[in-house]
Amino acid sequence: MDSETSCNKLSNPIKGAKIVPNMSVDELVREYSGCAFGAGRLAEAVDIYSEMLASKNTTKFFGLAGAMTPAGMRNIVADLIRDGHIDVLVTTGANMVHDTVEALGLHHYKGSDDVNDIQLRKECIDRIYDVYLPDGHFTELEEFLQGVYGGLPQEKLSIRQVLTEIGKNLDDDSSILKTAAEMGVPVYCPALQDSVIGLQAWLYKEGNPFNVDAFADMHEFMDICYEAESAGALLIGGGVPKNYILQSMLVTPKSFDYAIQLTMDRPETGGLSGATLDEAQSWGKVGEEARSMTVYADATITLPLMVAAVRTRLFEKST
Amino acid sequence: MDSETSCNKLSNPIKGAKIVPNMSVDELVREYSGCAFGAGRLAEAVDIYSEMLASKNTTKFFGLAGAMTPAGMRNIVADLIRDGHIDVLVTTGANMVHDTVEALGLHHYKGSDDVNDIQLRKECIDRIYDVYLPDGHFTELEEFLQGVYGGLPQEKLSIRQVLTEIGKNLDDDSSILKTAAEMGVPVYCPALQDSVIGLQAWLYKEGNPFNVDAFADMHEFMDICYEAESAGALLIGGGVPKNYILQSMLVTPKSFDYAIQLTMDRPETGGLSGATLDEAQSWGKVGEEARSMTVYADATITLPLMVAAVRTRLFEKST
Amino acid sequence: MDSETSCNKLSNPIKGAKIVPNMSVDELVREYSGCAFGAGRLAEAVDIYSEMLASKNTTKFFGLAGAMTPAGMRNIVADLIRDGHIDVLVTTGANMVHDTVEALGLHHYKGSDDVNDIQLRKECIDRIYDVYLPDGHFTELEEFLQGVYGGLPQEKLSIRQVLTEIGKNLDDDSSILKTAAEMGVPVYCPALQDSVIGLQAWLYKEGNPFNVDAFADMHEFMDICYEAESAGALLIGGGVPKNYILQSMLVTPKSFDYAIQLTMDRPETGGLSGATLDEAQSWGKVGEEARSMTVYADATITLPLMVAAVRTRLFEKST
Amino acid sequence: MDSETSCNKLSNPIKGAKIVPNMSVDELVREYSGCAFGAGRLAEAVDIYSEMLASKNTTKFFGLAGAMTPAGMRNIVADLIRDGHIDVLVTTGANMVHDTVEALGLHHYKGSDDVNDIQLRKECIDRIYDVYLPDGHFTELEEFLQGVYGGLPQEKLSIRQVLTEIGKNLDDDSSILKTAAEMGVPVYCPALQDSVIGLQAWLYKEGNPFNVDAFADMHEFMDICYEAESAGALLIGGGVPKNYILQSMLVTPKSFDYAIQLTMDRPETGGLSGATLDEAQSWGKVGEEARSMTVYADATITLPLMVAAVRTRLFEKST
Repeated sequence: MDSETSCNKLSNPIKGAKIVPNMSVDELVREYSGCAFGAGRLAEAVDIYSEMLASKNTTKFFGLAGAMTPAGMRNIVADLIRDGHIDVLVTTGANMVHDTVEALGLHHYKGSDDVNDIQLRKECIDRIYDVYLPDGHFTELEEFLQGVYGGLPQEKLSIRQVLTEIGKNLDDDSSILKTAAEMGVPVYCPALQDSVIGLQAWLYKEGNPFNVDAFADMHEFMDICYEAESAGALLIGGGVPKNYILQSMLVTPKSFDYAIQLTMDRPETGGLSGATLDEAQSWGKVGEEARSMTVYADATITLPLMVAAVRTRLFEKST
Repeated sequence: MDSETSCNKLSNPIKGAKIVPNMSVDELVREYSGCAFGAGRLAEAVDIYSEMLASKNTTKFFGLAGAMTPAGMRNIVADLIRDGHIDVLVTTGANMVHDTVEALGLHHYKGSDDVNDIQLRKECIDRIYDVYLPDGHFTELEEFLQGVYGGLPQEKLSIRQVLTEIGKNLDDDSSILKTAAEMGVPVYCPALQDSVIGLQAWLYKEGNPFNVDAFADMHEFMDICYEAESAGALLIGGGVPKNYILQSMLVTPKSFDYAIQLTMDRPETGGLSGATLDEAQSWGKVGEEARSMTVYADATITLPLMVAAVRTRLFEKST
Repeated sequence: MDSETSCNKLSNPIKGAKIVPNMSVDELVREYSGCAFGAGRLAEAVDIYSEMLASKNTTKFFGLAGAMTPAGMRNIVADLIRDGHIDVLVTTGANMVHDTVEALGLHHYKGSDDVNDIQLRKECIDRIYDVYLPDGHFTELEEFLQGVYGGLPQEKLSIRQVLTEIGKNLDDDSSILKTAAEMGVPVYCPALQDSVIGLQAWLYKEGNPFNVDAFADMHEFMDICYEAESAGALLIGGGVPKNYILQSMLVTPKSFDYAIQLTMDRPETGGLSGATLDEAQSWGKVGEEARSMTVYADATITLPLMVAAVRTRLFEKST
Repeated sequence: MDSETSCNKLSNPIKGAKIVPNMSVDELVREYSGCAFGAGRLAEAVDIYSEMLASKNTTKFFGLAGAMTPAGMRNIVADLIRDGHIDVLVTTGANMVHDTVEALGLHHYKGSDDVNDIQLRKECIDRIYDVYLPDGHFTELEEFLQGVYGGLPQEKLSIRQVLTEIGKNLDDDSSILKTAAEMGVPVYCPALQDSVIGLQAWLYKEGNPFNVDAFADMHEFMDICYEAESAGALLIGGGVPKNYILQSMLVTPKSFDYAIQLTMDRPETGGLSGATLDEAQSWGKVGEEARSMTVYADATITLPLMVAAVRTRLFEKST
């Protein structure tokens, strides 16, 4: 037994979490930090995210997969953009579709996952787990999108440019696309076809010129990656957003210095969505000295919690 | 389309979570309550747990599976017992072993799940995911347990009685067993053999009379169930604790009025650990009118969070 | 770059699975063996299990958690016992309850997990995921168990003895308990109270002497562990069966030489159910040189598949 | 109790699986069919897939997410295409990258998920769970892709056309892209930018004209959907392939008549990857009368198994 090594391993005793009334979210996270398993991992993720957001020379990437905007997570992302905590957003079509629906004043509703879907179909209600969306909302979305598309220049555009134009036509401070357009934060969505925004683009394109280049975004995206002095990524879920952010480091001489993922995906299915951040180190996507952490828990719980704690720490620092 | 039904389904719009510095845990939970998916479920679980704890005529069951005590969750459980929020605890041997280890002043340590376990073996360190435990601690635990066993009466005992005796011999306010013994809260552990406490019992029994009746607890446990005017259960993980608590309702004319589970287990493997609380309704374990909720997320994150919010609400009510 | 090490790591190319009509299960597994992820892991598990079953001096432990018997897995286990492939079975009360129900000629039925459980309750049907069980079956089970209990000797018994007696009273070659009793294979169930068998024991004990010692099994179980020249374990799910089998090695100077687990549980919740077999090496439960493998997939799929392949290999060897 | 309804629910007894040496995969699946949980679901999926493949007027969609080609699943997909069992393939860039790597005679290797990734990085080995890939392979892939891109016509292309051109330049019967090109089966990959094929397109585009229209595929894809008399989908994992296939039914007057998904994703995270096929019914993506089934298990195990059984049944039918 190598007692020295062993001693190192036994230097940090678990401290049981103490819970009292009226404690703040940051106080709760500080209690988590003495604990292990998910609680300990989340506390470490908060530390990393705080350091990453406070780091002035770090370019902040944000990967937003899943269907977080219909579940009520759009204000958080919009506010992070507004406050300069997101420099580059990569997301899915679904997230942008539902952000736009809400920005048009159309609501999603709390429903149930234990419901007769054929009955819902008859009532013209679309379900996203326990969220209901009246199918009629899409008619209004379609009109809006056709209007935006009609106003686009006929020259060749990138997907990012299309999303910026949508954002410019929205008037809702809680909107991710509106806030991103306002703040000049680029929003990338490599699979935009794979959404109602894409279906509407197809319909528009059937009768009108509509030139969107699939690879046009990559030049400016890669420039951002090259120019980053330091790079950090917060990844909500996996999918295209995670892979697109991480793969950029395959063709730059850099790697991520900070990386956090909030996910329920598992590594052993082998897909990139569930891959560990250690695996990303073998590819050079995440750096050898990077601070990284994966929190295996529902991101609708952990993202607000993490942001609440980090905002408190940044606020304390700034005052 | 049945517009009336449909209208009912569309009465509760999703409200995006708004996160600000210094917000309290309960304020965070109130933001969750406008959201869907895990966030919405957790907010609902907090509402149910608040109502359940405030209900004077409800007997409160607590199921504690997994390995929550080495991860830092014992203070929370001990404090819930102390404050009268747990009337009956059902748990695993592992949770009681590690509660006792800590109560003897021996620590668990924060480690890593990404480690060479054969090297750990050489360093005499036992690993529980990312928790390290020096193997030597078990020597002290064994001495303590042999002492307790030596002081037990030779008549026939129940498992609950053995655990009460262990609790009486501990001097640590953070200990679940000590607090339960002090407060007269029974701790049931149907598979006590399946733990180091059980292994030590076997060793003791090799040379001494040791009479523990496997079924002796059931009379008093069933009396509690029968006498409960109303019944509520908070289930952390599945396993024996969940099943033992729920099965009691198979032989009483009642069912649980409140049921909450915090788990990562999935229903489709068919085991009781991941079974939905709806499934429990088919058996009559959970009542037709019960308030119930499952939160699919790491319990080391959700249990402290839920308790922090509920404590705030109960505190406000009491002042 | 250490080219030598690297070469070692790159010695075994992935071979794409080739699927043809009429292939045997073992041929399928041989195709898996060229693949990675779950397929590769399952092929390796089959290799290990074949070697383990063919090893004459290896004591074979079988851990059966979850609710595998109502799902149709009892014949497989009974046949493994009959053929000498299981020396020691550790299981849950639920598995033995539903084995007994079937052995009494009472059926479980294929149902649906997407059903109104309150309606099921009204129809007196109990649900286990997508299995239905008429509640009335329990009346017959109860009569049977009361009869068995009435015939038990009044002296102190172990849980294993109670289960052997139940098995002796059954007449169904597909029954695990009947086959185990016939073959002299011990069945351990540390948490027997946690089942309908336990609830009936409580009812019987209310009016009759019924002496079952909670720790009586441990002497004979530990003797088996001590006497094992070599030890192997196949673990279906986690729970008490997994822990009880593995913990035996904490108090013997040995460790498991073969260990396979088929599970959907995840390591990061920290409970023993999802713990890796590497973690078990830190405790000395699984040996440094052991062959071990975890397959993360539904055990109702992987257990029959693995047994079909292993039976083919053993059959070929014997002919 | 409505005895009639109840009787209906209790008409199909569970039959325990009987496992014998040398049984064929289809025989194994027939044993599964008497079982519940994952085994029963898989047997039902085989029935549905057999019916779907035998249906002459059904257009067969295949969604391939994750990283199935490096794990050894490409031959299966290529053979399904060759035999007319896939009419439309929607997949990820990663699957096509690794298909192409293999088609160039470059191998992936069986490795370990329990490895030091920083050491792998030093050895220039990229890891995909337990698959190793020498980083140098990408140099050869890049040369190949630059050659293909150099030969592309300068007019506007669709992503499908780019993938067809890659396929035409490959000479490997196990290749998905080569076989699809040969058979005239379209391969769609909405997020092609999100892959090494995309990164190379960016590099090429920096110095050469390269016109790929992001939405050009949608016209022909929608035509296929419109013209389908009947439609069936086999979905391996979720992600863009699943959503892109299902969303087509939002703008056609049809819905899928057959739908099978093999996945480990969970519904409660709310993303489309884990969404149930029932949820898809509320949107009209899957029809009211459709035959559908989700199998929750590792697709590297279930896909080969399902294809082996279905091939046997189709073979029997044809002889």
